[in-house]
Amino acid sequence: MDKEKPNILGWTCPRPLMNYPTIVMGHGAGGKMMADLIEHLFVPAFHNPWLGQMGDSTSLDLSTLFQPPSAGQLAFTTDSFVVSPLFFPGGNIGELAVYGTVNDLAMRGANPHFLSAGFILEEGLPMETLGNIVISMAAACRKAGVSIVTADTKVVQKGSAGGLFINTSGIGVIPEGVDIGPANARPGDLVLVSGTMGDHGIAVMSVRVGLSFETEIRSDSAPLNGLVESMRSAGEIHCLRDATRGGLVAVLNELAAASSAGIEFEESSVPVRPEVTAACEMLGFDPLSIANEGKLVAILPRESTEAVLAAMRTHEYGTNAVIIGRVVNDHPGRVIANTVIGGKRVVDLPAGELLPRIC
Amino acid sequence: MDKEKPNILGWTCPRPLMNYPTIVMGHGAGGKMMADLIEHLFVPAFHNPWLGQMGDSTSLDLSTLFQPPSAGQLAFTTDSFVVSPLFFPGGNIGELAVYGTVNDLAMRGANPHFLSAGFILEEGLPMETLGNIVISMAAACRKAGVSIVTADTKVVQKGSAGGLFINTSGIGVIPEGVDIGPANARPGDLVLVSGTMGDHGIAVMSVRVGLSFETEIRSDSAPLNGLVESMRSAGEIHCLRDATRGGLVAVLNELAAASSAGIEFEESSVPVRPEVTAACEMLGFDPLSIANEGKLVAILPRESTEAVLAAMRTHEYGTNAVIIGRVVNDHPGRVIANTVIGGKRVVDLPAGELLPRIC
Repeated sequence: MDKEKPNILGWTCPRPLMNYPTIVMGHGAGGKMMADLIEHLFVPAFHNPWLGQMGDSTSLDLSTLFQPPSAGQLAFTTDSFVVSPLFFPGGNIGELAVYGTVNDLAMRGANPHFLSAGFILEEGLPMETLGNIVISMAAACRKAGVSIVTADTKVVQKGSAGGLFINTSGIGVIPEGVDIGPANARPGDLVLVSGTMGDHGIAVMSVRVGLSFETEIRSDSAPLNGLVESMRSAGEIHCLRDATRGGLVAVLNELAAASSAGIEFEESSVPVRPEVTAACEMLGFDPLSIANEGKLVAILPRESTEAVLAAMRTHEYGTNAVIIGRVVNDHPGRVIANTVIGGKRVVDLPAGELLPRIC
Repeated sequence: MDKEKPNILGWTCPRPLMNYPTIVMGHGAGGKMMADLIEHLFVPAFHNPWLGQMGDSTSLDLSTLFQPPSAGQLAFTTDSFVVSPLFFPGGNIGELAVYGTVNDLAMRGANPHFLSAGFILEEGLPMETLGNIVISMAAACRKAGVSIVTADTKVVQKGSAGGLFINTSGIGVIPEGVDIGPANARPGDLVLVSGTMGDHGIAVMSVRVGLSFETEIRSDSAPLNGLVESMRSAGEIHCLRDATRGGLVAVLNELAAASSAGIEFEESSVPVRPEVTAACEMLGFDPLSIANEGKLVAILPRESTEAVLAAMRTHEYGTNAVIIGRVVNDHPGRVIANTVIGGKRVVDLPAGELLPRIC
């Protein structure tokens, strides 16, 4: 942990929040106790030039982000995080809340800048748990190069929020000329994934059901904005999507539908860790429908693929990047897999619940 | 209800979501069921030019909002809503979620434009309840002149979210030259409130404890951006704050602290409805510490007060606006009330919980 930064573990006596070993209703009531939580936890942890304004909203000067006369194009997104348990191999809810929103901005080709954080805390949540999650969010912000500039805290009665829920919303700037969107796939384009599929969902599920493997399955939770920036510099990209809830299968279906194009892919080309395959067989899941939190699917013109793929492979979050399929004229809106045993199957959007509360 | 707009009550057979009379876990899983909820409820209800993009984040063209070459100043805020019960006299959680964030933007002098909505739904929530809340959010957006441009849905197990929680974040544009902030109060300034104090908190609490009065106490839940715009046109304003959690007392303390100035006010000048006074006496509350959802506190130079007050009184949400006090050189950071019986008392930030889950 960064020694220079505020750290709940480093609080010296009198430890400002330790009169209350757990969150109580008063921490959300708008009075002195909530002010203490803000002053001694959120503000020092998330410290940045914008957060200290203490207004009802935070004022952001865009002139540092845009080159006038271009008023520019913003990307805006929101995501709530309800993952259970709060800590899992490879990450925790706070890190996920930062990276999830950073990635949603990056999938538009935007450079993420500003995040909001809305905490719904359950009465009885240990103060130390909250402290550790907040500190890990702050570290995730530094890693992704974003700032939490506005926040809110509510407290609900015991049993009403599984410990805590976090919402983050994010603002990014889409550089001039960048046009990446789900409707841009064209027949002839190639389909790439940035790495192994299913790690996050299976990591969370393994903890929940008490599965253990020789090799621990860790969440792939990571900020993808740096990877996307290298990809953009290397060549043209039509669509990007991080493969979260519903996994690869959901993303391919959404992109095929939005672009009114068909997508075909080789099941055997999709990278899956052997331990994830094993867990999926045991639990009856399809790894291609399992959530990831640090993997993206890209669709791009054939001619830029070589350069973009090379750029991905030199990036820490794209070392296993690979081409898995192509966009076709046939069956618009549908996704077809060439199966391992040589057949073809329609890969439809999963209906409903696979793994609840994995993000 | 607006007949032209989509309405869950107007769904014709086959009613697209009515296979599921209640929310089930699958509605949050990223598959077909979640796609149905988005397609048949959220998108038609919140319909606007930006929402249909269906990307991971929404792209917003600022050139329509700014006059180049000014790149401009944004306001950004977030708020989670956990009010219980979901419906109360004068409003519901959906309306509150829209107005709360609109008001936080307006308190910076910003014109609110774009909202995000993050829903955390509890398994078992009746589909019709969700439908009615969403429709009422859509109506609130029209009334406030804002658009929900990005959204997210999560579903958690029964008993984990009191029906539903909603987070909204908002983006507004601060017009050039506007500088309204909590640190701007100066000795000699006057302090105004826009109307009666305590209505919202007591309205919610009355339902919860089963109190009934001859005159029903209704929430004052309302969008204040129009009121603020008239105030801004009428004269200079130093500070604005909506008196939500912690009520007038919390706001005055926060402004006194942020501006390092003293504030003095006349208790007898603060407007409180007689039925709110009666309820507070019965429940042992101070109406000046009770949350409002459609009232603001303003601090402004003496010379602009007359014009601003006149503008407020002609606006539907400011008819009862009144001067209650002044900013003084003495006791910086502290708030003193001249009491009804002729004494003085220090009015400190309430410590912790007064009324839980009123917003």
